[in-house]
Amino acid sequence: MKNEISIGLLGLGTVGSGVATILQQHQQDLRHKLGVQVTIKKVLIKDINKERLSSLDPSVFCTDIHELLNDPSLDIIVEVMGGIDGAKNAIEEALKAGKQVVTANKDVMAEYGHELLKLADEQKCDLFYEASVAGGIPIIRTLEDGLASDRISSLMGIVNGTTNFILTKMKKENMSYADALAEATALGYAESDPSADVDGLDAARKMVILSSLAFSTEVHLDDVLVRGMKEIRDGDLDMAADFGYTMKMIGSSKKDEDGIEVAVEPVFMANSHPLASVNNEYNAVYIHGDAVGETMLYGPGAGSLPTATSVVSDIIAACRNLLLEVNGKRVHSAQHERVMKPESKQFAKYFHRVLVTDEVGVLSKMTSIYGKHGASIQSVMQHPAQEEGKAELVLLTHRISRQQHLNVLGDLEGTASVISHYRIEGEESA
Amino acid sequence: MKNEISIGLLGLGTVGSGVATILQQHQQDLRHKLGVQVTIKKVLIKDINKERLSSLDPSVFCTDIHELLNDPSLDIIVEVMGGIDGAKNAIEEALKAGKQVVTANKDVMAEYGHELLKLADEQKCDLFYEASVAGGIPIIRTLEDGLASDRISSLMGIVNGTTNFILTKMKKENMSYADALAEATALGYAESDPSADVDGLDAARKMVILSSLAFSTEVHLDDVLVRGMKEIRDGDLDMAADFGYTMKMIGSSKKDEDGIEVAVEPVFMANSHPLASVNNEYNAVYIHGDAVGETMLYGPGAGSLPTATSVVSDIIAACRNLLLEVNGKRVHSAQHERVMKPESKQFAKYFHRVLVTDEVGVLSKMTSIYGKHGASIQSVMQHPAQEEGKAELVLLTHRISRQQHLNVLGDLEGTASVISHYRIEGEESA
Repeated sequence: MKNEISIGLLGLGTVGSGVATILQQHQQDLRHKLGVQVTIKKVLIKDINKERLSSLDPSVFCTDIHELLNDPSLDIIVEVMGGIDGAKNAIEEALKAGKQVVTANKDVMAEYGHELLKLADEQKCDLFYEASVAGGIPIIRTLEDGLASDRISSLMGIVNGTTNFILTKMKKENMSYADALAEATALGYAESDPSADVDGLDAARKMVILSSLAFSTEVHLDDVLVRGMKEIRDGDLDMAADFGYTMKMIGSSKKDEDGIEVAVEPVFMANSHPLASVNNEYNAVYIHGDAVGETMLYGPGAGSLPTATSVVSDIIAACRNLLLEVNGKRVHSAQHERVMKPESKQFAKYFHRVLVTDEVGVLSKMTSIYGKHGASIQSVMQHPAQEEGKAELVLLTHRISRQQHLNVLGDLEGTASVISHYRIEGEESA
Repeated sequence: MKNEISIGLLGLGTVGSGVATILQQHQQDLRHKLGVQVTIKKVLIKDINKERLSSLDPSVFCTDIHELLNDPSLDIIVEVMGGIDGAKNAIEEALKAGKQVVTANKDVMAEYGHELLKLADEQKCDLFYEASVAGGIPIIRTLEDGLASDRISSLMGIVNGTTNFILTKMKKENMSYADALAEATALGYAESDPSADVDGLDAARKMVILSSLAFSTEVHLDDVLVRGMKEIRDGDLDMAADFGYTMKMIGSSKKDEDGIEVAVEPVFMANSHPLASVNNEYNAVYIHGDAVGETMLYGPGAGSLPTATSVVSDIIAACRNLLLEVNGKRVHSAQHERVMKPESKQFAKYFHRVLVTDEVGVLSKMTSIYGKHGASIQSVMQHPAQEEGKAELVLLTHRISRQQHLNVLGDLEGTASVISHYRIEGEESA
């Protein structure tokens, strides 16, 4: 039986230093839980001369990734360096060398997760990635173990803290998008280039990971319909509120007999739904399972220590497996063929906001377009428009297909100009 | 390698039949996950002649518990029969016979959990109990694995669906306690004798289980301060609302250098806290960890299928361990000595509602009593009382110790009569 487990840490940035801190502070707890010493033995850093806040012994630092990956004394490689290609190669090499791997890298897992998990299975190694989605929330583990016995039918998540923070500020403090983004940047929630967050790519990658796991199938990034925050127009948040909704960037993933649909977009979420009250930089994932019904996990989506908590939980799991000599025993192969649902079978209620010339007959022209596509209207309201001689119409549809929704929007051009449009979610919930 | 895992089911009531249903419906998923067949081979029932809704082959039924416990072909015993002594003995016997055990029994785990987990460790058997707390919420697993690397500092839960349903109805539909209880009973949320729910014993048992796990120490039922719904007076819910709070039955468990405090009581929860919007029969557990910060798990607290989901997840975990031959490898021994915190060191803000004679000087008499005990008052408001010549005073304190709070209440008698009093929670939260 081993009496020490050695860790190689790739990267000592925000998450890496959090991992080092937790491992050092919790030595005693870990020893109690595992019965062995867990030691960070090598740390890959970029610049050996940069001053480090961590209390690690400087002798553990190295700048050559191969020195670390080829070190036979390392049991677990923890990849927290970020980026895609370099990180993917490192994970691959580590697995090929028979090491257990823990990663926090959603980009790599979204892009190459299927491939890497297959490699891990072949190598009989662990590849754990809890921290790749929703930092401090144990969502991967819950889908793998806690709800192992259930069949997930849908999953909706606020999985990007930056956009949730911005939307919260816009709603609660009436901030403009620009001001809210500036505050998010100042607080360190948004990157200097926030496009991956605000355009929805970051959330889309997380939804790829969650959907693949929840439905045991190979969902790809291309499968995700993505609409970013740019789609939001002035006044939309207030209108959402007027009708009893809250605007949220929602990653949603649903499965029924027609296939899977995955989308990331700004959504009108019913105020009564638990996701509507998830505020600020917090994340939450709401799961509907056939048997369990509704459950939701809520917590910090990012941050050094929350994310490091998930990484260290994965390290502990890998250590347990090492001590029991049962690494790589998870089945990662997809159980189901990947069947994506066509837009004609993706049903939802929609909110349409359009600008029309304020004249007799315009409403009848409009509604006939909806009628032509079999899109049933729940209600129409007229709002004053800023422009002289124009009126704003707000239409809420009954449940229609995304195809119908898009056909209607296309046909409206000429009669009206579409200001904004959103899917409506969360009304069926308790 | 085994190619079949055999299960003995003790009880075929609400949860038991849910377990049978899920295992039957998910045979294919289970075979994919585990690579073997999982079969219910024996089911203990009370009356062999009673007609069963389950589609189990009648040949599996037996009425003699020892026929089941002594059957060497059974790998896993699933205890869903309820009750205390009989269930405890059954679990004990099963463990002694070297079988893996899954139980949904909070009464047994609260009362004998420490003892039974010790026995499981000695026998190198699994004893899993996810379903014993908050039916469909994977809280035990999250504390054991997901937050394995964190140090939990506090945990607050709505862990009794019946009382949460009653409080929701009282608040949202202005129902009386009696009407709300009657509806809960009609819907099957409350038992015919609801005292364990409304008096807080059920929640207290769950808090014993959660606290023991979260703090790795042996918390006992006697350690829990329990106040039931009987403490709630007419008008209290409205007053909570007036001050920005929602009345909730909260199980809370906190640990700091002075020790652990565990309580179940009606609490004024700040509306901004995520627990305040957990409604109806839903449960939620809010966890504060040193590293992760705030997380919350939300979901159904009871019900046949949600609870059965947790039981079957435990069965899957036990099956995995059986196939890897690593059952009973968890460390269950308490890491820390049990140190309960004295009332003089349990700090909180309090709400006091008292009836006084409406005369000059009464307020000064009152406040001097608070002053005498060093209990600082945040605000005092006067409300009209129904009784002629009387006034109702509502006092909110700053943070004081529970000892100070109780001393003040004791000393008030003579000057005022105490109508109701509650701890205030959730204000520090985001």
